[in-house]
This record gives sequence, C-alpha cells and structure tokens, in this order.
Amino acid sequence: MLKLIDPSLNADVLHALKSMGHGDELVLCDANFPADSVARHTVLGRLLHMDNVSAARAAKAILSLLPLDHFVDQPALRMEIAGQPDEIPPVQAEVQSEIDRAEGKSWPMGSIERMAFYERARKAYCVIRSGERRFYGCFLFKKGVVSPDVSF
Amino acid sequence: MLKLIDPSLNADVLHALKSMGHGDELVLCDANFPADSVARHTVLGRLLHMDNVSAARAAKAILSLLPLDHFVDQPALRMEIAGQPDEIPPVQAEVQSEIDRAEGKSWPMGSIERMAFYERARKAYCVIRSGERRFYGCFLFKKGVVSPDVSF
Repeated sequence: MLKLIDPSLNADVLHALKSMGHGDELVLCDANFPADSVARHTVLGRLLHMDNVSAARAAKAILSLLPLDHFVDQPALRMEIAGQPDEIPPVQAEVQSEIDRAEGKSWPMGSIERMAFYERARKAYCVIRSGERRFYGCFLFKKGVVSPDVSF
Repeated sequence: MLKLIDPSLNADVLHALKSMGHGDELVLCDANFPADSVARHTVLGRLLHMDNVSAARAAKAILSLLPLDHFVDQPALRMEIAGQPDEIPPVQAEVQSEIDRAEGKSWPMGSIERMAFYERARKAYCVIRSGERRFYGCFLFKKGVVSPDVSF
C-alpha cells in the first residue's frame, strides 16, 4: 500500500503507466478479450493484470494517474457492439462516467469496430486485463502530458 | 509523467515502493555509499537510482508515497558521523524537515553507526542511490501501513 495510489494498481501496472509517454496507448480489456495473444504484440510484450475488478473500477484507478491526450479529439475509444455501433451498453457508460470525472468535463469516447480494435491494440504500449465479465468492456486510452507548472 | 506522482520517482523505484510491505526497509544513500555491492544483498537484489537529486529531494519524493511505520519509535534512521554521533549535518537536517513535513509532525530520526548501517542495509528491501554528494547523506526508512479508511 502507498499513499495517493489506488490499491488496485499493482507494481507492474504502475511501472507500465510510468514508462509510457505522450501518445502511447493503453488497452483496458475485459475477461473475454484475447488479452495474452494481443499483448505479446505490444511494446511491453506481456500482459498486465487488474484481477477481480470491473472495467469502471479499473478505469477509475488508471485515470487517477494517467492523463488523457488533449492533443487529439478522442483520446479514449470503446469497442463497438457488432451490428450496433452506436449502442452504449452499461459497462461502457460506467467507464464514460469515470473518464468525465477524471477530466472534470464530459468528454465522450470515440468508438472503433471490433476487428479494427484488435489491430490497433496490437500497436499499443500495453494491455491490462480487468475482471470485467460483461461483453464489450474493452477500451483504448491515449496518454497525455503533465504540465511543468504542476508542482509535486 | 503521471498525475500525483513526483517525476523524480522512476518506474523501477515506483515498482519497488509498491512491492514493499509493512516493516520492509528502504535505504536512501548518497553518491559515495557502496550502493551496488550492498544492494546485491537486499531482497530486490539490484540497485535503484534517483540520479541528480539531493538526499532531501529524493526523500521528499519517496515520502510522498511511502508511509513510515508508526508501530516503531524510530522508523527513520540516519548514519552517524564517525566520532560525532550526535552531530546532525545540514544534509541530515534537510531530510529531517522532509520527514516532519510528510508526517505532519516533528519525528526525529534515530541514528546508527556506519558499520552497523552497512550491516542493516544488506537486510533491507532495496537501496536507492540519490545524487547527493555531501557525506553522511544515508538514511533508512521503514515502511508503514495505509488504513482501510483511506479512500482513493
């Protein structure tokens, strides 16, 4: 346990979040996603785990540290439901709430078709698998920057 | 860069701080300490680096995350000056200020003779070498706990 750090973030996840830089992408996936096989294509090359927590709980913890990229319009993406690309299921609405809370404003996610998501995920920095069992609990977050004006 | 996290804490240091548990000890040493040879005896087994920062700057960053152990009277120790065990040089007074600030109260460090420090350091969880060039910039911090009442 550490001060300030959400306890659902383990040491390996912390290491990865810190190692990422501006524009690097992180995949937060659900329990059915082919996480290990995709993760082996990523920069990190091995799967990270946030076991036994929902997608929203994992997103909340990650976004407590990871700034989203304000250089792009849609730094967060959700996987589209096959045949219903505009439908936003509860698992995705919950993550949207965590994004809005972390950023202090409404910032709707973009969306990406399932096969395109797989392709983009392979180019990410890393994949973190949550314990989310609801379908389409898969997201992509692009890392932003912290201003030199922020003091620690 | 991450929100909340002092940028002087690199990914490997973050990983170690998170991996430590209650009662584990961390050595923060200066640039002259036999850091690598001691670190190879520690639990982690390899040296960690906080290059180009003073002992006080490193202590401030570490203690922004690491709680000190309230189960013992002296969770922080300083290396005694040879022949002047009660003398507190500026490099140690500066670290004392960071301890007091992090803990919100005056909590004087204990002290330990140089050779005894080396011996105890080999049993620590890890050694972190700062860029501190002043002599006797060597400290030992025992990790404490974070209450379940703290929310994230």
